[in-house]
Amino acid sequence: MANITKKVSWSSRTDESGAAGEGTPLLNGSEQPKLSRQDSLRGRPKEIPHNEKLLSLKYESLDYDNIENQLFLEEERRMSYMGFRCLEISRWVVCGLIGFLTGLIACMIDIVVEELAGIKYQVVKWNIEKFTEVGGLSISLILWAVLNSVFVMMGAIVVAFFEPIAAGSGIPQIKCYLNGVKIPRVVRLKTLVVKVFGVICSVVGGLAVGKEGPMIHSGAVVAAGVSQGRSTSLKRDFKIFEYFRRDTEKRDFVSAGAAAGVSAAFGAPVGGVLFSLEEGASFWNQMLTWRIFFASMISTFTLNFFLSIYHNNPGDLSNPGLINFGRFETDSVTYNLYEIPLFIAMGAIGGLLGALFNVLNYWLTIFRIRYVHRPCLQVMEAMLVAAVTATVSFTMIYFSNDCQPLGPEHTEEYPLQLFCADGEYNSMATAFFNTPERSVRSLFHNQPGSYNPLTLGLFTLTYFFLACWTYGLAVSAGVFIPSLLIGAAWGRLCGILLASITSTGSIWADPGKYALIGAAAQLGGIVRMTLSLTVIMVEATGNVTYGLPIMLVLMTSKIVGDYFVEGLYDIHIKLQSVPFLHWEAPATSHWLTAREVMSSPVTCLNRIEKVGTIVDVLSNTSTNHNGFPVVVQVAGSDEPAKLCGLILRSQLIVLLKHKVFVELARSRLTQRKLQLKDFRDAYPRFPPIQSIHVSQDERECMMDLTEFMNATPYTVPMETSLPRVFKLFRALGLRHLVVVDDENRVVGLVTRKDLARYHLGKHGLEELQLAQT
Amino acid sequence: MANITKKVSWSSRTDESGAAGEGTPLLNGSEQPKLSRQDSLRGRPKEIPHNEKLLSLKYESLDYDNIENQLFLEEERRMSYMGFRCLEISRWVVCGLIGFLTGLIACMIDIVVEELAGIKYQVVKWNIEKFTEVGGLSISLILWAVLNSVFVMMGAIVVAFFEPIAAGSGIPQIKCYLNGVKIPRVVRLKTLVVKVFGVICSVVGGLAVGKEGPMIHSGAVVAAGVSQGRSTSLKRDFKIFEYFRRDTEKRDFVSAGAAAGVSAAFGAPVGGVLFSLEEGASFWNQMLTWRIFFASMISTFTLNFFLSIYHNNPGDLSNPGLINFGRFETDSVTYNLYEIPLFIAMGAIGGLLGALFNVLNYWLTIFRIRYVHRPCLQVMEAMLVAAVTATVSFTMIYFSNDCQPLGPEHTEEYPLQLFCADGEYNSMATAFFNTPERSVRSLFHNQPGSYNPLTLGLFTLTYFFLACWTYGLAVSAGVFIPSLLIGAAWGRLCGILLASITSTGSIWADPGKYALIGAAAQLGGIVRMTLSLTVIMVEATGNVTYGLPIMLVLMTSKIVGDYFVEGLYDIHIKLQSVPFLHWEAPATSHWLTAREVMSSPVTCLNRIEKVGTIVDVLSNTSTNHNGFPVVVQVAGSDEPAKLCGLILRSQLIVLLKHKVFVELARSRLTQRKLQLKDFRDAYPRFPPIQSIHVSQDERECMMDLTEFMNATPYTVPMETSLPRVFKLFRALGLRHLVVVDDENRVVGLVTRKDLARYHLGKHGLEELQLAQT
Repeated sequence: MANITKKVSWSSRTDESGAAGEGTPLLNGSEQPKLSRQDSLRGRPKEIPHNEKLLSLKYESLDYDNIENQLFLEEERRMSYMGFRCLEISRWVVCGLIGFLTGLIACMIDIVVEELAGIKYQVVKWNIEKFTEVGGLSISLILWAVLNSVFVMMGAIVVAFFEPIAAGSGIPQIKCYLNGVKIPRVVRLKTLVVKVFGVICSVVGGLAVGKEGPMIHSGAVVAAGVSQGRSTSLKRDFKIFEYFRRDTEKRDFVSAGAAAGVSAAFGAPVGGVLFSLEEGASFWNQMLTWRIFFASMISTFTLNFFLSIYHNNPGDLSNPGLINFGRFETDSVTYNLYEIPLFIAMGAIGGLLGALFNVLNYWLTIFRIRYVHRPCLQVMEAMLVAAVTATVSFTMIYFSNDCQPLGPEHTEEYPLQLFCADGEYNSMATAFFNTPERSVRSLFHNQPGSYNPLTLGLFTLTYFFLACWTYGLAVSAGVFIPSLLIGAAWGRLCGILLASITSTGSIWADPGKYALIGAAAQLGGIVRMTLSLTVIMVEATGNVTYGLPIMLVLMTSKIVGDYFVEGLYDIHIKLQSVPFLHWEAPATSHWLTAREVMSSPVTCLNRIEKVGTIVDVLSNTSTNHNGFPVVVQVAGSDEPAKLCGLILRSQLIVLLKHKVFVELARSRLTQRKLQLKDFRDAYPRFPPIQSIHVSQDERECMMDLTEFMNATPYTVPMETSLPRVFKLFRALGLRHLVVVDDENRVVGLVTRKDLARYHLGKHGLEELQLAQT
Repeated sequence: MANITKKVSWSSRTDESGAAGEGTPLLNGSEQPKLSRQDSLRGRPKEIPHNEKLLSLKYESLDYDNIENQLFLEEERRMSYMGFRCLEISRWVVCGLIGFLTGLIACMIDIVVEELAGIKYQVVKWNIEKFTEVGGLSISLILWAVLNSVFVMMGAIVVAFFEPIAAGSGIPQIKCYLNGVKIPRVVRLKTLVVKVFGVICSVVGGLAVGKEGPMIHSGAVVAAGVSQGRSTSLKRDFKIFEYFRRDTEKRDFVSAGAAAGVSAAFGAPVGGVLFSLEEGASFWNQMLTWRIFFASMISTFTLNFFLSIYHNNPGDLSNPGLINFGRFETDSVTYNLYEIPLFIAMGAIGGLLGALFNVLNYWLTIFRIRYVHRPCLQVMEAMLVAAVTATVSFTMIYFSNDCQPLGPEHTEEYPLQLFCADGEYNSMATAFFNTPERSVRSLFHNQPGSYNPLTLGLFTLTYFFLACWTYGLAVSAGVFIPSLLIGAAWGRLCGILLASITSTGSIWADPGKYALIGAAAQLGGIVRMTLSLTVIMVEATGNVTYGLPIMLVLMTSKIVGDYFVEGLYDIHIKLQSVPFLHWEAPATSHWLTAREVMSSPVTCLNRIEKVGTIVDVLSNTSTNHNGFPVVVQVAGSDEPAKLCGLILRSQLIVLLKHKVFVELARSRLTQRKLQLKDFRDAYPRFPPIQSIHVSQDERECMMDLTEFMNATPYTVPMETSLPRVFKLFRALGLRHLVVVDDENRVVGLVTRKDLARYHLGKHGLEELQLAQT
């Protein structure tokens, strides 16, 4: 949720941090969007200009390719076989820790939410019961709405004022991170704290949200923190895991963290691994995958174990995830061959409803980006939604006449008699007056006949709009559970209708089964995940039998939904203008070659370069390059310079900071010996160039880059086709790819934005514009 | 099994097919193994020289990198967006077909085995019962042994004489194929037919084998056949799917086929996908994975559906795989926290036993390679094993006094009263007198107390040695089920012993649960698969609860086993000297650079080259290069030639065959226009150079390679470290990587063998020798 906040905040904050764009000259600078600003003139809140056909230059890439400079190679060569074994063992230890801590956080969230929500519902229920007798139910309504708003307000305040990146589920941000885009502050400790507090508030506040999505983000933050062996926020450095202080290793651990989060959220360790791979892995590595799986397993086990203690049943490992679909027995709810077309039809409905959800949310997000970008406005909107949710729920329960007899099988914690006769319970209330997780479970497992079709229809309708409105608020919360809930409701409705159409006696259309299929269809229609979602659903039901129908349903809903609009996460990523790389180059891009794609001319540095030149190049804010090819001129020849390496802005910054200069004038080498440790200590928050003072004398010194540059950067000739460049770039997780001519001279540089620019639109291949939004 | 056969046959046949080694000059030619051949002088069977420290040059690589020459690019550029959509849809159709056919084959094997084994056991049982009364049981024994031997003989004859590559489970071969090594004849129709017939014979013949492993190979063959839209063996070309006639596409489909095979064998679609990824994927692609999953799902569904018809219960989809572990109910067999150390201990036992199994089988295989390489000897050995298996089984059953009362829950198809009193059944016979699949299920699910500890101990011991002897015979059969059976037996034994050590009344140590853990431990100890095996086991039990213990057990058994010896499949791959690329370069290889690794000097061709030169280069049997850098000389300059492309032997062969010559003498261009279709028609069985006649006149002609060469081959500078080269090579599935100097001149060529040569031995980094074995 609350990707507008991210929009506003991401762009405003990156300016401060001095983070700079990729090494791409702003070719299209003159074509920057000229959106009308007249709205702000009329006294309306200042509108943030926005254009979808842009690609922001604000986002840096991660360097998944190791910087193999002399320092690195020397270290690797010094290391013995035992040293590598120890590293491998510490990787496993880190993954175990990630899993353990993620599970612990999930457990804490679950317990706090259960306790607080329990108290809230008890208070409201007691109040309603009191006033049902004496009249004056409006007081109960107000009580409920105020309680909700207070919780939501607390959640929204921390998010909007302290850490806007913690808004929403965090899944789009983690997708971007795993794709190789550095999203500022996304894996910081502060973000985690705000996220956890925020998600508790928004779930307890009764919003139409879930606590599962945020677990994925939380896991990722845990991973980024643990693997670095230090916390910059807390200013503590434990001096461990220093080897892992680079993008390559960190990104691997973040994959494990995200998987552990999925695993804890849904009790789906395999699904977690597949999620990480689906979103992140450009390069599949067996050992890495196995470690990710380990983290996932530890995470679900930790959660399970502590929840079993909380439920006074230690050792009973039956709560593998935050959401528990309950047990689907194979006997009772097996499916028949002739039901498969029905499932596929439901998948199509899910795709349609999902597309509708996404389109509505898209418009809403555009509106929010334009008009609701001030933190206080965001908090007020969140409170409004909370109050409206409570009011709608109350009204629905009040006017519902779906009273069901309270059977012996009915073991709800709060028997919801609300407005019903004694010995009966209000069926609408099982859906509204409950945490969403419990409502989903009830829809899956309550006896046939527990719900009136009208109840389900009304519930679907209202909850659909509430959830759509809620996603994008400045609160920490996920969209998985609301989607499941909407789908389960209309799925169950389908089951009931099918059963009533055909022979009356038979219960072939078990409503619980159809609720499950509906839930899958709706979720698939909204988020459009494929393999991992199938596995997550299968693992959450704990029953492999449903594999094929769930897969068919998810496929159908994806195909139908993709016809209209992209998935919800992709929409929000696009609205942020993130340079996201898909799996393959657009199909019809073979006519493009590196020559057209690359940025040129490129700012190159000499192998031994004047400090003043380096400072000037780095300070040039109009280009903000991040990577510089290093060239060498053959002495005494007028031949053009040849490529001999590649150096990053961050490395140059460290070199300047440590004054690694050669004073040629005195003809002696005073170049300080830098070590890898100096670079690792500075990682990942390299200071901006403005903060480094270089005196006029120092500007005249030279700097020898030989030892620090990556001497063997990947190169391609100019004639290489775009798909080929794309594949190399994506498979190796590159950040800069040097384009050379047949004499090995630098002619251009390909970066992430140069590739992400091209995409398949409705009129064939389209090219996005680059801008410093 | 029967990897010796492969050894002999792979090397002998590749000579005929003219398949040549990689473009690696035989640097170490002079160091070819000088193994003593004196054995043959003494009249013993001719010994095949064998040395593990060799890497065979016989194996070609697959070209996972697209050959982006002008023809290809022109075709891609001509293709519209709709064209690409149609291609995508046909990929899905092919995957669906692969799944369907694989499921159908699995179903056929299952039904035939069930029927034949049923008849066999009925005959033997009837015979034993007859002779138990009148005496003369030796006749029964002989009948049983002869029946078994006849079946096994048939299976062994087809394998040994017609298609030796069909021996064994085929998993090592498929691993190699997915790794990028072309194994001759591994995906041919004939192989499939022999495989299916062979596996039926060996399972019915009562060998200690399973029919699951061969399904993976069968699925791969189906995939390779269907995706090409033609059968060379049947000489039918359906003129469809011509676009898929290249290594890149074919390998993707073979991944899907292998996954479909796993899925049909174990009812584990997700496990199948993970198997393919674990073994094959160098580059993870979301759409590809999704298609693989689709094939897997269709495969298990097809099997399930047809088996339900066979079992007269259409629509009851409860047989997702060939092996059915039966239902593990969560209630009855949940585990407790304090059992986890026990599971880990069992994992260690599994690792030890697995290592023992592998070591014994390794010695046996060496023995077989040396002395049992003639087909008739192989058939005789297989028959001997069959007879011994029957004899041992008979003896065990005869001397067993483990008679159990026949309870009402006992629903075996053949109530095995053998040698027991009326109303009782012979417990040893449930293990021996049954197909292995049924025996596994009985061990998992029979009531506590069904087996006597002595019975289980004896069974484990005998079956261990029988299975070890059997793996490697010239029959089609897998090692999964025997491993599971051994493990289940000693696992159940552990469970019984644990229960008897502790309090008598409690059944906390449910023997079925321990049987499952033992089975996982033993299988893990032998094959050492990790993630995919965990998921396969979880899916086969249909219960997610066991995820963590199974994973811990598999991890332990892998770690313990790896301490002693590699996994069984890896041993057999190594014994074949296959240039197998692991996931990463050896850890301590940073001191090596492309300069040391590459082969040089390289045979280069000019862009416009004399036909005679090309023919001579291709005919040079001492080098047998497969890829040639194409260079261009600047006209009128004496500068060294620069790299401008790369061309393959197979392409040159097609060009020569079609006489694509330029007759310079007559100063007119007669170069025929070749199309991609000509290359696709020739794929994958390109004729040897010897079969192409080039006249003396034609030798004087020139050939223009510009249009056909890959104009943008990947290159690396000489200083690139081995890990970096390795990563590039592995991630992109390359076959040739050109090493250039800083002037873009060719200095060397890195191929698969140059990288596979380096491995971590006991004394650090070791280098294997290359040889034309």
